[in-house]
Amino acid sequence: MTSTNKKILIVFAHPEEKSFNGSLLKAYVKHLESKGHQVKISDLYKQNFKAVVDRDDFLNLDKNARFQQAAASYGAYAAKQLTPDVVAEQEKLLWADTIIFHFPIWWFGLPAILKGWVDRTGEYSDTRFGDRYGEGIFAGKKAFVITTCGGSPDQYSDRGINGQMDHVLFTINHGLLFYTGCEVLPPIVIYQTDGRKEEGFKEAVDLVKERIDKFDSVKPINYRKQNFGDYEIPSLRLKAGLEQPGETGYDIHIAK
Amino acid sequence: MTSTNKKILIVFAHPEEKSFNGSLLKAYVKHLESKGHQVKISDLYKQNFKAVVDRDDFLNLDKNARFQQAAASYGAYAAKQLTPDVVAEQEKLLWADTIIFHFPIWWFGLPAILKGWVDRTGEYSDTRFGDRYGEGIFAGKKAFVITTCGGSPDQYSDRGINGQMDHVLFTINHGLLFYTGCEVLPPIVIYQTDGRKEEGFKEAVDLVKERIDKFDSVKPINYRKQNFGDYEIPSLRLKAGLEQPGETGYDIHIAK
Repeated sequence: MTSTNKKILIVFAHPEEKSFNGSLLKAYVKHLESKGHQVKISDLYKQNFKAVVDRDDFLNLDKNARFQQAAASYGAYAAKQLTPDVVAEQEKLLWADTIIFHFPIWWFGLPAILKGWVDRTGEYSDTRFGDRYGEGIFAGKKAFVITTCGGSPDQYSDRGINGQMDHVLFTINHGLLFYTGCEVLPPIVIYQTDGRKEEGFKEAVDLVKERIDKFDSVKPINYRKQNFGDYEIPSLRLKAGLEQPGETGYDIHIAK
Repeated sequence: MTSTNKKILIVFAHPEEKSFNGSLLKAYVKHLESKGHQVKISDLYKQNFKAVVDRDDFLNLDKNARFQQAAASYGAYAAKQLTPDVVAEQEKLLWADTIIFHFPIWWFGLPAILKGWVDRTGEYSDTRFGDRYGEGIFAGKKAFVITTCGGSPDQYSDRGINGQMDHVLFTINHGLLFYTGCEVLPPIVIYQTDGRKEEGFKEAVDLVKERIDKFDSVKPINYRKQNFGDYEIPSLRLKAGLEQPGETGYDIHIAK
């Protein structure tokens, strides 16, 4: 099955072009373009993207005003008073129908430059009850994570000491990509990256190529939408009995 | 019960001195000092702390060498070739017997400037089998998180749509503080911060004061150590049957 042509934004966060991640990016972008997809890359290190939110980000913020991140972000977004670098990222996001987050896992999370991209580009408020978790500005888009780590699959398995990879990535897949309305495809995780030789690299490239070539048939993670009856209003607690027997924690937010 | 005097490092990440978090910091630092504790503050925004790891961080890295984050970090640490700003943070960490991470939750995680402090200050490798998870350079220190969020306790409860707060904070408490050897005390979480008035602020200050005054009697989170028999070697999967009936996910890594 061939995928229809996509408009793909890759948000890439690694400092070294010659790294495993840099080489992987190059290889799959070539493949994407050969298949006729349109590709834009936000290469955050190359762009020297400003990682830290501060009051300079909000052009309409009074010099003497107390700075509140959520309110300032919302106000500047509504008044079109965000900085050009942030606006450029938002335009790429709106252009894309497919968003790839590609980063190495550092300290069980996003590299700071990518966390900063999220902090600055996203208009975020966790007090909001409206169009979030399955609805929102990115509804109709698909997104997924490509990530690398040093640890083994066992260490990130259901009983692994690092926690299960789906849980480690939950705040990204659910709290960021699904939160903003995207359908989220399963992540592509490349374990034990450091020791990989040529063959291990090829294996990783093939994983990404396969995802691209079968894209339209890959089922999204079935996260429960906020406003379609699964959650109590206004507590936003999952209604009793919806989870599978024995399910707890993050897992209950995925419908089976 | 009065606490013995402590050497406390507060790593603080908020851009606005007049914010809820800024005011909270001021209030509890005053209390700490009045009780005779020694306090150092790493106020990352005020320090204009560089958030983004790049090759400039490693003074002994050859210009033409391929840059690998974990290897460069380890090599520069061993050779004492880290930058002065990072060395200064490491010295404060070694000085302290108590470490407080104080930050607002943005997008379910650390603000980028604090994630960058972690990325740059920590010598991290998730391939390591040695002195991590309950052992390591910070053994003998205690640490805990003070954090604020806009959402309600319900939204961060066991069935809440944001995921349970202990799970949202797991990669910080377990993956960072416990990983490096600290004993981790339960976090102090202040919910629905945005709408708080004077009384709500006082309540938050009292929470922190209480923690400080009862410090020596607060029980750490009972995370399982890596190398004391609970995990299979070398898979680092939890041995069968150690968890409570019905426990899954992150919860199995806390001994009851």
